[in-house]
Amino acid sequence: METVSTNRAFGGTQGVYKHASSATGTDMTFSVYVPPHDEGASLPVVWYLSGLTCTHANVTEKGEFRAACAELGLIFVAPDTSPRGDGVPDDPAGAYDFGLGAGFYVDATEAPYAAHYRMWSYVTEELPALIAAHFPADMGRQSILGHSMGGHGALTIGLGLPDRFKAVSAFAPIVAPSRVPWGEKALTGYLGTDRTRWRRHDAVALIEDGARVPALLVDQGEADQFLKEQLRPDLLAAACDKAGIDLTLRLQPGYDHSYYFIATFMTDHLRWHAERLG
Amino acid sequence: METVSTNRAFGGTQGVYKHASSATGTDMTFSVYVPPHDEGASLPVVWYLSGLTCTHANVTEKGEFRAACAELGLIFVAPDTSPRGDGVPDDPAGAYDFGLGAGFYVDATEAPYAAHYRMWSYVTEELPALIAAHFPADMGRQSILGHSMGGHGALTIGLGLPDRFKAVSAFAPIVAPSRVPWGEKALTGYLGTDRTRWRRHDAVALIEDGARVPALLVDQGEADQFLKEQLRPDLLAAACDKAGIDLTLRLQPGYDHSYYFIATFMTDHLRWHAERLG
Repeated sequence: METVSTNRAFGGTQGVYKHASSATGTDMTFSVYVPPHDEGASLPVVWYLSGLTCTHANVTEKGEFRAACAELGLIFVAPDTSPRGDGVPDDPAGAYDFGLGAGFYVDATEAPYAAHYRMWSYVTEELPALIAAHFPADMGRQSILGHSMGGHGALTIGLGLPDRFKAVSAFAPIVAPSRVPWGEKALTGYLGTDRTRWRRHDAVALIEDGARVPALLVDQGEADQFLKEQLRPDLLAAACDKAGIDLTLRLQPGYDHSYYFIATFMTDHLRWHAERLG
Repeated sequence: METVSTNRAFGGTQGVYKHASSATGTDMTFSVYVPPHDEGASLPVVWYLSGLTCTHANVTEKGEFRAACAELGLIFVAPDTSPRGDGVPDDPAGAYDFGLGAGFYVDATEAPYAAHYRMWSYVTEELPALIAAHFPADMGRQSILGHSMGGHGALTIGLGLPDRFKAVSAFAPIVAPSRVPWGEKALTGYLGTDRTRWRRHDAVALIEDGARVPALLVDQGEADQFLKEQLRPDLLAAACDKAGIDLTLRLQPGYDHSYYFIATFMTDHLRWHAERLG
């Protein structure tokens, strides 16, 4: 693991790191904020998964998470959203919603994506091992959140590994990718046309199939341009209602899909996570 | 004035605006955050001046000022750092520390800069009139802060117009441009070689010449790469001590020159301003 940069921030250290990933077969860059802490302390870890077009840098620069992480004693990890580099295939038309910057947190099975697009394994196995090895992390206390495509990632990973994550939340998540254009394109491209194989990468389908977490927190801007076609929080609300999952869905008047929205509610989410991380 | 973008944030509105400036003879872009407020309210205005290479966007995206401005009821205005566009001369060698992105908040008198580089007039006259006309601003309650070259701007404008600004503070400011390489290059290029004409654009010289404000707050990172050659807070401390100006100079161990440093202490500065803005 190579240190790209470190900056002191809110009494802790904001770092950016790079490593050769065996999961993706590429170099991967990620950021970690370590809050001020006592020597020898072991701190809970919050995973943040980013949305379409993002790298680790967007939330690192614009997410306004460090004040709360410093106060609450949380490590904050932000991975990239796809493999990148020589030989990594992109969307054939160069679209923003598939390929580079759009890994959708799945392990692709379809050519030519299967070789590198293994973001599920990267985020759930390889990167956690690296974090455990190199940071003062208590891997018994992890939580996950994300935005848009990363909200999809947080929900599906949180529902898929309920024993690992003590809190799961999202900003403007794609909740039912099998039923919206962004998701149908991505899941077809990465996983093929057999829709039964999509269900473990669709939060609403996972809940329908029996996956459970005690609670979910979702903030959604009402002025979000993607709300009705791509995000569909109504589908998550219906699924949680039927399954008895305690969903707090907050519709925020006037807020859009940007980091101005995320930053506004970031501290609320981190407090909610901290309560559950103990 | 044209609205480039608006985003809801922390209950208020983060806007970016553009207008044809008569001071600079170019289009100028700036950002304004208006916090949540009652209908008809008139709010204090905090001016933030940015450093070398920046536009309005750096602090707008990375400054983490909105939470505090929303809580304290402050309008936050961030101008650009120079004129830009067709016909605006840059540094002959394209250096980052002169010309575009490096206006140093002076009205240039030297060719070829005098025609467009009129940032003093822009920031102290033209833009305040625009803010007064278009935003719910109480122009009787203004304060100013800035970073690096913008810290120089905040100090010199604050000392130059002490009746206007109720609080003046800075992050890692250039305090004595006449005596450091960045400043000597800029003041020579914009104002010529007669150093007596530099003194009203040098905070330490202004204080030596009798300019006074009741108090100053300055944060300076001890790991700042520009500390000893370009910034020299020791010179400001000596001048304030001699003049009886109540300077709070906080040397922050481990902090560098980046927005991670600025964001860490932004809330402190805004609280300090709010106390003085009433």
